Amino acid sequence: MSGSFVLRISLGELATRFGCELVGGEPDTPVERVATLVDAGPGTISFYTNSAYRKVLGDTRASAVILSARDAKDCPVAALISRDAYAVFARIAALLHPAPPHRPGIHPGAVIDESVSVPPSAYVGPLAIISAGAVIGENAYIGPNCVVGERCTVGPDSKLVASVTLVEDVQIGKRCIIHPGAVIGGDGFGNAMTPDGWLKVPQLGGVRIGDDVEIGCNTTVDRGAIGDTVICNGVRLDNLIQIAHNVRLGEHTAIAAMVAIAGSTEIGARCMMAGKVGVAGHIRMCDDVIVMGNSMITKDVTEPGLYSGTFAAEKDRDWKRQVARFKRLEELARRVAQLEKAGEIDE
Amino acid sequence: MSGSFVLRISLGELATRFGCELVGGEPDTPVERVATLVDAGPGTISFYTNSAYRKVLGDTRASAVILSARDAKDCPVAALISRDAYAVFARIAALLHPAPPHRPGIHPGAVIDESVSVPPSAYVGPLAIISAGAVIGENAYIGPNCVVGERCTVGPDSKLVASVTLVEDVQIGKRCIIHPGAVIGGDGFGNAMTPDGWLKVPQLGGVRIGDDVEIGCNTTVDRGAIGDTVICNGVRLDNLIQIAHNVRLGEHTAIAAMVAIAGSTEIGARCMMAGKVGVAGHIRMCDDVIVMGNSMITKDVTEPGLYSGTFAAEKDRDWKRQVARFKRLEELARRVAQLEKAGEIDE
Amino acid sequence: MSGSFVLRISLGELATRFGCELVGGEPDTPVERVATLVDAGPGTISFYTNSAYRKVLGDTRASAVILSARDAKDCPVAALISRDAYAVFARIAALLHPAPPHRPGIHPGAVIDESVSVPPSAYVGPLAIISAGAVIGENAYIGPNCVVGERCTVGPDSKLVASVTLVEDVQIGKRCIIHPGAVIGGDGFGNAMTPDGWLKVPQLGGVRIGDDVEIGCNTTVDRGAIGDTVICNGVRLDNLIQIAHNVRLGEHTAIAAMVAIAGSTEIGARCMMAGKVGVAGHIRMCDDVIVMGNSMITKDVTEPGLYSGTFAAEKDRDWKRQVARFKRLEELARRVAQLEKAGEIDE
Repeated sequence: MSGSFVLRISLGELATRFGCELVGGEPDTPVERVATLVDAGPGTISFYTNSAYRKVLGDTRASAVILSARDAKDCPVAALISRDAYAVFARIAALLHPAPPHRPGIHPGAVIDESVSVPPSAYVGPLAIISAGAVIGENAYIGPNCVVGERCTVGPDSKLVASVTLVEDVQIGKRCIIHPGAVIGGDGFGNAMTPDGWLKVPQLGGVRIGDDVEIGCNTTVDRGAIGDTVICNGVRLDNLIQIAHNVRLGEHTAIAAMVAIAGSTEIGARCMMAGKVGVAGHIRMCDDVIVMGNSMITKDVTEPGLYSGTFAAEKDRDWKRQVARFKRLEELARRVAQLEKAGEIDE
Repeated sequence: MSGSFVLRISLGELATRFGCELVGGEPDTPVERVATLVDAGPGTISFYTNSAYRKVLGDTRASAVILSARDAKDCPVAALISRDAYAVFARIAALLHPAPPHRPGIHPGAVIDESVSVPPSAYVGPLAIISAGAVIGENAYIGPNCVVGERCTVGPDSKLVASVTLVEDVQIGKRCIIHPGAVIGGDGFGNAMTPDGWLKVPQLGGVRIGDDVEIGCNTTVDRGAIGDTVICNGVRLDNLIQIAHNVRLGEHTAIAAMVAIAGSTEIGARCMMAGKVGVAGHIRMCDDVIVMGNSMITKDVTEPGLYSGTFAAEKDRDWKRQVARFKRLEELARRVAQLEKAGEIDE
Repeated sequence: MSGSFVLRISLGELATRFGCELVGGEPDTPVERVATLVDAGPGTISFYTNSAYRKVLGDTRASAVILSARDAKDCPVAALISRDAYAVFARIAALLHPAPPHRPGIHPGAVIDESVSVPPSAYVGPLAIISAGAVIGENAYIGPNCVVGERCTVGPDSKLVASVTLVEDVQIGKRCIIHPGAVIGGDGFGNAMTPDGWLKVPQLGGVRIGDDVEIGCNTTVDRGAIGDTVICNGVRLDNLIQIAHNVRLGEHTAIAAMVAIAGSTEIGARCMMAGKVGVAGHIRMCDDVIVMGNSMITKDVTEPGLYSGTFAAEKDRDWKRQVARFKRLEELARRVAQLEKAGEIDE
C-alpha cells in the first residue's frame, strides 16, 4: 500500500455514507484498509463480485465484505449489501487510501520554455520539459521525465504520471490521468505510393481529449492527418493501445490492452472492447457495443450488443486436426452435394 | 494546424506544378490550406480517394478537390484531376503547410559525451543524451528527452522527434524520422534452456537502418544476436510494432500498427502488412506481398499477392454456434463418410 | 560487435570447459569470436540447432560449429558436440564477448532524492531520477533517462538499461535486466460503472519481481489492485508485453513479444508462450504449458502440453472461400442430417 496515513471508519458509517445495508455485523466495527478476500484479516474490508471466487469468499477473514443481496447468503462475515458492489468498493478504497495530494511547485531540474506560465497550484517534476506555447492548468501535475510539446494544453487537475510524451497540438481536458510511456500526438501513418517509394503525407491535425479520461502505459494516440483525433469525456484506455489518426472515441467508452483502432474510425459512446481487439479503418461503430477479446471488426456495427470472432486455444493436436478439416470443407460440401444428388436419382 | 505561416497559391499553378487537369474551376482561384471534405470551406483544397466518402464529396464546400478522372463527375466544385490523387495531395499539403525548419544548436540542458562532435547544423534538444562514440550527421535533429547510446549514428537530415532511445550500435541513415517512445537496439529475446533455468544468449549484433525510413511511436527494433537487424531504404513502420533480432525488412516495405515479426525472418521489398499481423521466426517472404489485418504468417511466402487468415467479428451468439460446429467437424465428416458408404452398398 | 576486447581460446579448451566432444578438428585451433553460419570465417565459432539451416551448415567456413551428435555428419568443419548446443553457444559467446563491467559512480546530471543512499558500487546514469524511499542495491545499474519512483527497490546486480520507468512500490530482485521503455508499476485497469460514467478503482498494490528476471523493451507490468502483481525468479519477458494487475507468473516462464495477460491470471512455472498470445483474466494455467503464437486462452489449463488456436495466413481468395463455407456450416450439417434421415427411410 502506498499510503502511510491511516483512517478508521465504522461499518455503520460506511453503510450510511454509501447507501448499503449492513447484514450480520456490528455497526461500530472499525475497518481501516481494503484487502483481497484471501489476504483479509481483522480491520479489513473486501468485496465479492465474481462467482469464480465463491470458495474464497467462504473462507475470508475480512471484517466485512461488500457484495450484492444475491450473494449475501454465502458471506461468512459482516456484509455490506449494494446493487453496485464494485463501485461502492471503489469509493470506500478511495476513502480509506486517499492518494496523497501533490505538493505544488516546480522542480529546479525541470526545463520550461520562457513563454510558458505555470500556475502556482501546479506541480512540475524533475527533468520534465514544457515547450513553447504550452498551457498548464490549475493543479495540473506534470510528472518526472514528461515532455509537453509545443502548443499542448494540460487542463486543470490533470496528471501526467511520469515519462509521458505529448508531441504537439495536444489538448487534454480536466481531471485526466495519462500513464507513463504514453505518446500522444505522434504523426499518423500516412503514406502515398509513388514510383520512387512512399511519400510522407503531412500530418497536420492535433489530438483533443475531453475531461475525466484515463490513458494507460505505452499507449499511442496519433494526431489527425487534417482534422483532429478526438477522445471524448470519460473514456478509459488501458496499456499498449493504438489509436490512429482521426479516430473518434465516444463518451465513456472503455478499451482494454493491446487493442488497435485504425484511422478515421468512429467508435460510439459506452462501448467496451476486451484485449487485443482490432478495428479496421473508416468504420462506424454505434453506441453500446461490447467486443470480446481478440476479435476483428471489419465492417460498420449499427446495432448495440455483444460481438466476437475468435477461437480459444486447445490441445495443439486437436486444433491442427480441426484446421485440416476446415481447410477441406469445400471437399466435404462437394461430397454432401453428391450424396444429395444420388438420393434424388434414387427417389 | 501547427504552422502559422500562410501561403496562397492558385488552382492553375497547382495544376501546372503537379501535372493535374483543372476541371470546373477558375485557374486564379486561390487556396491556402488543406481540409477534410466535411470541414472544407472557401480557400481550402481537399482530396477524395475512398468511395465510402462519396456522399460527403457531394456536399463539400472546398474550393477544389483532388481526385481521379473517374470520380470527377461526382465533384460539385473545382476538380484537380490526377492518377495519383493521394500523392498529389501529399505534395500540396507539404507545400501549403511546410514543417518549420529546425533551429540548429545545442540546448544547454542536453548531456553530450565529450568524445562526440555535433555539427553546427544539427539540433540537440533539452535533456537529450548523446553517448560515447555516437556520430551525429549534418542537419540531424535529436529531440528532447532522446537517448543516443554508445556507437550509434544518426545520419544527415534524420530526426529523432522526442523520447526516442537508441540503445547501442544502431546506425540510422539519411532523412529518417523516428517517433517518440521508439526503442531501437534493445537486446533480442535469446534464451537457452538449462537445468537451472533460462540462460541469456548474448546479443552482440546491431541495427542498420537505411535512408528515408520512418519508425512509429513505441515501436521496438531489437539488435541482432550475432549479425545485424536490417531495415532497408524507404521502409515505413507504424506504432507499437515489434521487429525481433536479425529480421530484415526489404526496401519500401510498409507495416501498420501492432505487427510482430519474429527473429531471423526476411521480408521482401514493397510488402505491405495491415495491423496486428504476426510473422513467425525464420520465415522468408518474397517481394510484393500484401497481408491483411490480424493474419498469421507461419510458412515461407514465395509468391506475390494478397494473403489473409482471420475472421471478422459478428454477433456473439452466431459466432459461438459456428465455433461449436467447427469443433464438431470431425463428427460431421464421419457422418458424411458413412452416408457415402451406405450409398455404395445400395448401388 | 560491441566489445573491442579480444580473447583467443582453443577448441580443445572450449571442449574441456563446456563438456563437449571435439570431432573433426585440431584441439589447438584458436577461435576469437562467434558468427552466424553464413558470415563465419577463420577464427569464428558458430552453432546449428535449426534444421531449416542445413544447407547453410554445409557451406559454412567457421573454424568450428557447436551442434548435437545427430547433426555432426552434416558439419563440414570441426564440430563441438553437445546435447545442449544452444546453451553451450550462449556460454561461449559470453566468454568471448563479455559485457564491459559498468563503472560505478553517479553522473552529475542525475537527480537523486536526498533520502536515498546509493552504494558506491552502483552506477546512476545521466538524467536518471531516483525518488524518495527508493533502495538501490550493490552493483546496480540505473541507466540514462530512467525513473525510479517512490518506494521502489532495485536489487543487487540488477540493471535498468535506459529510459525505464518504475512508477511506485516496485520491488526488483537480484541480477534482473529491464530494457528501455518498460513501464513497471503503472495503475491497473480498474473501473466501476456508475450512472455518471466510469469510476476509477484505486490501484493500491505493488509489483514484486524475483531474481534473474529479464523484461523487454516497452513491456508494461501493472501494479496490483489490492495485493501485488508477482513475477517469480527466472521469468523472461520479450518486448511489448502487457502484464495486468495481480497477475502471477511462475518461475522460469518465458513469454514472447506482444502477449497480453489479463488481470488476476496465474501462470505456472516453466510455461512458454509464443508471440501475440492472449490470456483472459482470472485464469489458472498449470506448470509446463506451451502456447503457440496468436492463440487465445479463455479457460483454465490444468494439463501440461502444447496448446494452440489460430490459423495461418493463405491466399486471400482461398481464405475468403473457407470463411464463407465456415459461416454456412449450420446449413451443411442440416443437409447431412436430412440425408441420414432419407437413408433411414430407405432401409
